[in-house]
Amino acid sequence: MSESRPFISLATDFGAAYTAICAGVVYSIAPAANVLVLSDEITPFAVREGAMLLRQALPYLPVGVHTGIVDPGVGTPRLPVAIETGRGDVLVGPDNGLLVPAAEKLGGAVRAHALENPAYRLPEVSTSFHGRDIFSPAAAHIANGVDVAGLGRRVDPLPLDVPPPASAGGGLTVPVLYTDRFGSLVLGAERDDLTAAFGDLAPGSPLDVAWTVPEPGSARVTFEETFGGVATGDPLLWIDSSGWLGLAVNQGSATDIFGLAGVQALTLRAAAPHS
Amino acid sequence: MSESRPFISLATDFGAAYTAICAGVVYSIAPAANVLVLSDEITPFAVREGAMLLRQALPYLPVGVHTGIVDPGVGTPRLPVAIETGRGDVLVGPDNGLLVPAAEKLGGAVRAHALENPAYRLPEVSTSFHGRDIFSPAAAHIANGVDVAGLGRRVDPLPLDVPPPASAGGGLTVPVLYTDRFGSLVLGAERDDLTAAFGDLAPGSPLDVAWTVPEPGSARVTFEETFGGVATGDPLLWIDSSGWLGLAVNQGSATDIFGLAGVQALTLRAAAPHS
Amino acid sequence: MSESRPFISLATDFGAAYTAICAGVVYSIAPAANVLVLSDEITPFAVREGAMLLRQALPYLPVGVHTGIVDPGVGTPRLPVAIETGRGDVLVGPDNGLLVPAAEKLGGAVRAHALENPAYRLPEVSTSFHGRDIFSPAAAHIANGVDVAGLGRRVDPLPLDVPPPASAGGGLTVPVLYTDRFGSLVLGAERDDLTAAFGDLAPGSPLDVAWTVPEPGSARVTFEETFGGVATGDPLLWIDSSGWLGLAVNQGSATDIFGLAGVQALTLRAAAPHS
Repeated sequence: MSESRPFISLATDFGAAYTAICAGVVYSIAPAANVLVLSDEITPFAVREGAMLLRQALPYLPVGVHTGIVDPGVGTPRLPVAIETGRGDVLVGPDNGLLVPAAEKLGGAVRAHALENPAYRLPEVSTSFHGRDIFSPAAAHIANGVDVAGLGRRVDPLPLDVPPPASAGGGLTVPVLYTDRFGSLVLGAERDDLTAAFGDLAPGSPLDVAWTVPEPGSARVTFEETFGGVATGDPLLWIDSSGWLGLAVNQGSATDIFGLAGVQALTLRAAAPHS
Repeated sequence: MSESRPFISLATDFGAAYTAICAGVVYSIAPAANVLVLSDEITPFAVREGAMLLRQALPYLPVGVHTGIVDPGVGTPRLPVAIETGRGDVLVGPDNGLLVPAAEKLGGAVRAHALENPAYRLPEVSTSFHGRDIFSPAAAHIANGVDVAGLGRRVDPLPLDVPPPASAGGGLTVPVLYTDRFGSLVLGAERDDLTAAFGDLAPGSPLDVAWTVPEPGSARVTFEETFGGVATGDPLLWIDSSGWLGLAVNQGSATDIFGLAGVQALTLRAAAPHS
Repeated sequence: MSESRPFISLATDFGAAYTAICAGVVYSIAPAANVLVLSDEITPFAVREGAMLLRQALPYLPVGVHTGIVDPGVGTPRLPVAIETGRGDVLVGPDNGLLVPAAEKLGGAVRAHALENPAYRLPEVSTSFHGRDIFSPAAAHIANGVDVAGLGRRVDPLPLDVPPPASAGGGLTVPVLYTDRFGSLVLGAERDDLTAAFGDLAPGSPLDVAWTVPEPGSARVTFEETFGGVATGDPLLWIDSSGWLGLAVNQGSATDIFGLAGVQALTLRAAAPHS
């Protein structure tokens, strides 16, 4: 990592102010750092959404120290960790699976250590704001050149729990990973999963999408390569820029139009072209 | 542009995370850059709002590379462009009128080129995230010293389509440009337009404001030089800090109080002082 | 303050774009500055919330120039001020009490001066956007080494008006300072106030919380040292990471669950353990 201007990113569910306090702690310890707030608006406590964001974003950021904090377990005995990646990054955050998919995208987890050494925490550690008191100081010290082995004992990070796509009775059930800012659903399936279930789908192929929780519902959509494949206001299934299957409405909000708030899984079925 | 710490701004309708991914791409290509997120919260697909923001903001930012991305046409054949200004900036974004009013404020568009050269894109270009794959790499390479002529063929940027203020039957009809964070409406008219329609308006002059879409409505307001000219909770017309006419409520939301969400144009008429 | 990379923070109720315009003005005047947006999402016109944020956050930021702008009085004769602190910071903003609690946390206000010298304003000063035209230029010039005494006449900053906790009839009435992003209420009382009213509270001690405005309501909660002390969805009183008493719901929004929007004060009473 460059000694001259080490790169540090922060991704949290804290909102602007508490995230900026973390940045302030980093700058106090590592004044030369270049701190980028990757997000301060992850949905509160949404570990899966945060994990997918880190997995999607970090390959496009410079090699550096990347801090991810979505931590429903703050104040409980879950460990804080630092994970070194094959690319040379260090990922810092709670050991709840948040960091693991990103580490896999960055060359894999080379080694991981708990953040236990009080020399790399703030002098006073609160029970509720580990972002400020534990994670940010650790990130700054690592950026200053501290080896992760100096932070604490070696650990094996816990994996993220996400169900895989499941085929049954001609349908493919996929988990909802998160809802993006445009109201589109990002789904836990990739092009290969779609091809395995339905064969190669030409642009315009119709599919039925159904859900049961919190309220049963369904929609007829088409698979498209681009948003431009459907008219304004029409729905589509597509592969997003990070390779995930998505359910969207061209220039509209799929969540609002189909009432998808709170939906955890969708079942896709091939539909007859002219029904 | 300073070679030592080139200035790059980003204005998008992407939200925090996707905008930060763009910043990460810039830092990966131009590690010494100073990146400022001008906005990540432009209303999705609101080209006119984005154009007015860039026109208002960029004169106050350092000379640099300013990236604006509000791009309903992503995935269609619209061109990506870089526009060099008389002040020495380069504006980068889609060729949909978004950048043109700002270029006019910055000494005019000196020359413009399409972003076609694959050497200045990411190796893999998605159909949906040109901010990451085309616009940010172009901005970073320009900040690194690449001449805009090296990006692609010369083009004439498309203008932004905004209706001018229109006088008819003693009324002045003005377009709504956007709604700001405080719920105030920013209108497509300047002090000169108001003076041409109604003469010099003294502070406290009453005007009637009417609208027809989506629901007909009207309000009696006064023209003021400052918010302090009316009591807390009272409405006013005024000239905002960038020279636009605005409809606001002192310490309140004009949009909420008068039900102005979705209103596209207002008609102003002089009112009798004591009716 | 380091000449090489002076630290400047911005905290406003402006949203992203107008705050970034302020950052752009700073970079135009002080190109080497390191500008951190502490918050651009303070509730509009909420001076008390802004003051508590600055008081909580600034001790964790590097010594520097900290600009706070929540300014319902913009356009009226209230003064703009710069306050030098015992720690060596300069706080810049409106003289409405916003900066004073933070100054007290940073070693006290050593001296304060009005921002009157036109040499340290933008050439044209609007009536509505003093953040851009007065506060940001002043902050940048101070970061460049201008002494606060050169900005204008010496003044005594006005204090922030917050009612203290009040005991009456066995109850402790405390003001609501603000609602945080998670929907938790931050209250104007500290552990000592709680101990004075109720003695030492063991984790799990039950308390009744009542409010009368805008609608009467009440809730039975327990005092806890950590969120983990109660089940998911259960409420708690606790001491937050900056020492304030808070009313929260574990992994939920206390504001939504109990209907606390607009509540200005709570009255706490000790409750029988098994009622």
